[in-house]
Order: sequence, then structure tokens, then C-alpha cells
Amino acid sequence: MTPLNPSFAAEVAASFAQQPIMNLIGAQLSLVEPGVIEITLPYRADLAQQHGYLHAGVVTTIADSACGYAAYSLMPAGSEVLSVEFKVNLLRPAQGENFIARAEVIKAGRTLTVVRADVFTVAGDSDRELVATMQGTMICVRKRE
Amino acid sequence: MTPLNPSFAAEVAASFAQQPIMNLIGAQLSLVEPGVIEITLPYRADLAQQHGYLHAGVVTTIADSACGYAAYSLMPAGSEVLSVEFKVNLLRPAQGENFIARAEVIKAGRTLTVVRADVFTVAGDSDRELVATMQGTMICVRKRE
Amino acid sequence: MTPLNPSFAAEVAASFAQQPIMNLIGAQLSLVEPGVIEITLPYRADLAQQHGYLHAGVVTTIADSACGYAAYSLMPAGSEVLSVEFKVNLLRPAQGENFIARAEVIKAGRTLTVVRADVFTVAGDSDRELVATMQGTMICVRKRE
Amino acid sequence: MTPLNPSFAAEVAASFAQQPIMNLIGAQLSLVEPGVIEITLPYRADLAQQHGYLHAGVVTTIADSACGYAAYSLMPAGSEVLSVEFKVNLLRPAQGENFIARAEVIKAGRTLTVVRADVFTVAGDSDRELVATMQGTMICVRKRE
Repeated sequence: MTPLNPSFAAEVAASFAQQPIMNLIGAQLSLVEPGVIEITLPYRADLAQQHGYLHAGVVTTIADSACGYAAYSLMPAGSEVLSVEFKVNLLRPAQGENFIARAEVIKAGRTLTVVRADVFTVAGDSDRELVATMQGTMICVRKRE
Repeated sequence: MTPLNPSFAAEVAASFAQQPIMNLIGAQLSLVEPGVIEITLPYRADLAQQHGYLHAGVVTTIADSACGYAAYSLMPAGSEVLSVEFKVNLLRPAQGENFIARAEVIKAGRTLTVVRADVFTVAGDSDRELVATMQGTMICVRKRE
Repeated sequence: MTPLNPSFAAEVAASFAQQPIMNLIGAQLSLVEPGVIEITLPYRADLAQQHGYLHAGVVTTIADSACGYAAYSLMPAGSEVLSVEFKVNLLRPAQGENFIARAEVIKAGRTLTVVRADVFTVAGDSDRELVATMQGTMICVRKRE
Repeated sequence: MTPLNPSFAAEVAASFAQQPIMNLIGAQLSLVEPGVIEITLPYRADLAQQHGYLHAGVVTTIADSACGYAAYSLMPAGSEVLSVEFKVNLLRPAQGENFIARAEVIKAGRTLTVVRADVFTVAGDSDRELVATMQGTMICVRKRE
């Protein structure tokens, strides 16, 4: 996919740095390509639900930010991105050392962009195991001057 | 709705207390009735996304826990609850002093329970304003001995 | 809710009459109020899936049209409505003599409108039983001249 | 993916033949592999909504059946499949000569199976264009004797 904004990568990184929640949970931006974003999150016990698995809301937090920035990376300069809706299927208990949310744009539109994100666990060097998948819609709004 | 587990309220409270993420974000269980749960979350700047609104993932976190415990409140003793899937529509920017996620069971089944949660902002004593709504599925699993 | 288009009821009815699929399956518009639409569908064996229940896609067809027209009823004159996305939870086998999809607007926006629809079975004069619920997003597009 | 039921292909075909709605709309089973199903539907004017596009409910009908049979193809003998929930994003107006719904299982479980379906238009020999995508959950129930 061809980005409309030549400085998309810097703007994604700058916006991500302005999401305080990412700092609170310890998430990092690990891949920025046109229409594709990865966010990495090491497991922490204080992010868990009652069984010790990563809470589905935290899984959603990194998937949603990944989707938002995947959409944003294809928007023209001077845009802002907001989440319209998303749906998450939780496939396995979210247990592992590290989690990666990888989002890819399915259809970029002038107003609405549809994005999918998969959230994987990664233990050591082993294969990724899918724990959740998101399908969502992002909206492009013009930045207020 | 009639609870199958007479000590459902104590068990919901005990399980909620074992969700470390609720403590991290400052969420509290504020209503426990059969099939109905409310979770309250005061706004904090470190829970925000890049525009200062509560991150959609945090909105989802309290909505998902509310849905899970609403389902759990109707399950027989010896059950555990897990989220199967949910869908969230974000209706307005999540700005306000306090947020309440209110979940109500739509259909309780032996295996699957369908739940809806609305997330409101509450400023002072004024009316609730809806910021997001979730429709999701929870599954009942038998507790491992 | 206050309609922006004084002739919304006539326009909903006219548009519904232009949906050939409604005629094919035998669905009728049974209630038109601002932000609220009901569509009624008598059971027919040729609308069923392999167990004789109404196919989930047919349940969705009437729910989606009800949601679309509920959104459309609140749009300004000269608008068209399209479905952006919807999510359906199927709560019970869709068996019964008659089905009613009732849609209500949750949040009407200038571009996007969020709508919920419940699909009930109605047997004789007895109570409605909920078989499915939809949560979806509709978009307002200006009619091309 | 490895099928548990050696006669899965015959059973999918037999069950599909028992869905009267598929005959009503003119849909055909065009691919049956373990965990992968395609259903083909030629455009017909009586399946349209008010702008002449295939109604979103019809798009959903073939996507849902494709998802159901993709899940069913991996279930043990003596199972039945029902749809629990699905979410559909509509990406483009559904216009074209032929539509294909292609479903693939993402995660097959003993009780629940998560499936994705893409619906494409195919005009002549040209490339497929994606018009909608579904993410849903199917449930395995034991056949009643």
C-alpha cells in the first residue's frame, strides 16, 4: 500500500509516544510500515485477570492501537484517527512471555478504514501462537488547527 | 433473573479482587446484582490515548469485566467464566471525570451467555452520557479441582 | 428523537418498496417512527437452514434493513444509507410462525449512526421471544443528483 | 487441517442440499476442503437492496453458511453445527456478476470454532474484489438420535 503522507512513520511514532496508556502497560511500537503496525507487550502480572492470563481488555488495548496506527499510516497529512468499532475473538488463554499485536489494513477509504489485528504470544524464539483476532473500523478526521 | 449460586455476590467480589488490572487502572466494583454488574473508573491521564480521551482499550477493559461478572453471577457454583468474543461501538470521545460500565445479561445459557454493557461518563451529579456499548459472549467452564 | 426530514415515513416506505429481496422473502414494513423501525416476516420453509430454523442470514437480512431504515429515518432529506458493519448474536434457534426485527437508533451522528436491532419470534398472541440481537453502524451518504 | 470425520465432504454436501434458502437464492457449494469452504452465488436482481446491490443480508447468508460448513468439516462424526455470532464489515457496494464466499477456520475447538469468511465479486475472468469480510463463532452440538 502506498502512503499518502511521506512522513507517516515519524507521525505514527510521535502519536504513539503521546498515548500514556502504552507507557502504563509497557507496550512498544515494534514495526511501522504502510498499512502494517506491530506493537509488542511483555507480560506483567499486574495486567492479568483472575486466572493470571493477560486481561482481554489489555489484549484489546494493543490490538486497537495497532489497528488505529495501521489506518493512520495510510491517511493524508493533517489527519487524526479514531476507533469507530471493533470486534475481538479470544481464541486461547493469553499466557506467554511476550505479546505482539500485528495489524494490517484490509480496505483503506477516504473516511473509513477497515483493519484486522492478530495478537500472538511469543515465547523465546519459538513460533507465534494466535491468542486473539480483531476486525475493526477506524475513521479519519481532519486535525483541528 | 434468579442466581443458581446463592453466594454469587461474594464470589464476584472475590474474583474481581483477584484481577490485578482492575487495581492498576483504579476500577472498582460498584454494583452486583443477579445478571447486572457495574464497574466504576475515575479518569486518569495515564489511561488516555493521544487526544487525552480514555483509551478504547480501557473502556473495553471495564466493559469486558462487567460482562464477565454479569454472566458469572448467574452461573452455578464451581464455575469459571472466560470471554469468548465481544464487539464494541465507540459512540463519543471518552472524556469525563468518571466512567461507569454497566453490564446486563441478555440470555444466560448453560454453556454460553450473551451480555451487553454500556459505558457512560458521569460528570458531577449530571446525567449519564453513553460513550460506548459492548455486545459479547461469555463461556462457563467448570473449575479445575 | 426528532426527524430532520419531515417526510421520513414516506421515504422509508418508498425505499423499502424498492428492496426486491424484501419481496422475495415476504418481509413487510410494520412500524415506522423516528429512529425506530419494525419489519415483520412470516416463517416459510424455503427460508430455512438444514434443521428447519430460519437461516441466520435471513434473520440478519430483516435486522439489517430495520437498522438501515431506523438510521435513515433520522437523516436529512437527500440522504442515502448504507450498512458499514454489524454484529449479530444468535440466542436461540429461530423457530416460530412470525418474526419481527425491531431496530432502534442508539446514537445518530452526521456521518455514522449506531443502531441496535432485536429479532423476536411471535407465536399467536403470546409473548415475544428474543432469537437474535444486532449491533451495527450505518453511514449517511449524500444522494447523487 | 486434519478432518476428524473421514466422510466430511459428503456430509457437508448433504447438509448444504438440505438448506432450502440456498436453493431460493441460487447459491452453490463450489469448494469443500478440511476447514475451507466456498459458496458461489450469481447476482440476481431479486436479491438486491434499494440501489441494486446485493443486500448485505444475502452477502451474510452465503458467508454464514460458508463459515458453518468450514467449521463442520473439522467436527467429529455425529455433530451438528450452529452459528453463535458473527460480525460483518461491508467494504464496497456488492455489485458484480458473481459472488464467492470463502470461509477458513482460524481456530477449531472441541466446542467453539472461530471462522473467517471473505466475500468477493468475480466479473468474467478478472481478479476477485473483496466486498465484505466476516469473523464469527460456530458451536458443535451432538446430533440428537
